[in-house]
This record gives sequence, C-alpha cells and structure tokens, in this order.
Amino acid sequence: MKARVHIMLKNGVLDPQGEAVRHALGSLGFDGVDAVRQGKVIELDLNETDAEKARESVNAMCEKLLANTVIESYSVEIA
Amino acid sequence: MKARVHIMLKNGVLDPQGEAVRHALGSLGFDGVDAVRQGKVIELDLNETDAEKARESVNAMCEKLLANTVIESYSVEIA
Repeated sequence: MKARVHIMLKNGVLDPQGEAVRHALGSLGFDGVDAVRQGKVIELDLNETDAEKARESVNAMCEKLLANTVIESYSVEIA
Repeated sequence: MKARVHIMLKNGVLDPQGEAVRHALGSLGFDGVDAVRQGKVIELDLNETDAEKARESVNAMCEKLLANTVIESYSVEIA
C-alpha cells in the first residue's frame, strides 16, 4: 500500500524558499506568479494492507517525525 | 488559478533523504515501511485564467528553474 504525505508551512508562516522561487521566476520573465509556497512530499511504501490502519500509522509518523506541527500542516493520501 | 507541481527524484536515482527518513521511522518503531522517497511540492498562484496556458507556463517553469530534469521528474496539476 502506498501513501503520499504533503507537508506545507502553515498559512502565515513566512516561506523564504517559496519567496526565492517567486523572485527567480520573475527574473526569468515569468510574470503573473502571485505567490509561491514550497513544501515537501514524502512517498511511503507500506506493508500494511488495510487502508484505515495505514492512514492511522502514517498520521502517527507525521506527528512524531515527518512534520513539525508547530509550523507545518500535513495531509495524507492513501493509494 | 492555482497550480501544484510535484518534483521527485527519478527512479534509480539514490535518495539519501528518503533513506534517512526510512531509517528514522524504523528507529521510532514504525515497522513495515519498505521504501521512502522524498520530493518537493511547489504551489503557485497564477494570474492566468486559461488552464491550458497555465499548464504550458508551469511546464516551462519546471524545465527552466523548478526541476533538475537530469535527475528529477515533475508533474503538474492545475486547479
């Protein structure tokens, strides 16, 4: 079973990486980019075959290791 | 119009970050994680209102700046 986790900085948290990307895109002539946010995506191959258990397990991984929940939010997709 | 870009290392390219995450999950007692790949996700707010044009524009951004196409593959979602 595969899981995909998106980890983004929460709204309101300054995202210097995204800002740098926006600036660089402007320099390259890509106008019309209003805002850029950069985050992480983590793809996991799990042994678990039950989707609900897999989701619980991945949520626990996010809380304990993958995301810094003070400044980051995460979302889990199970496929 | 919003766009989301996923940038992952191509299959076969060593992913030390993902490997480190897998190892750390094992240390924390999360067994049953076979493989981990870590990538980037970039969310863009675009002025463009035409979905096809937006997709073309974001593809060009990926080729020129966002992805290193030698070792990374990207996928674009327009929403």
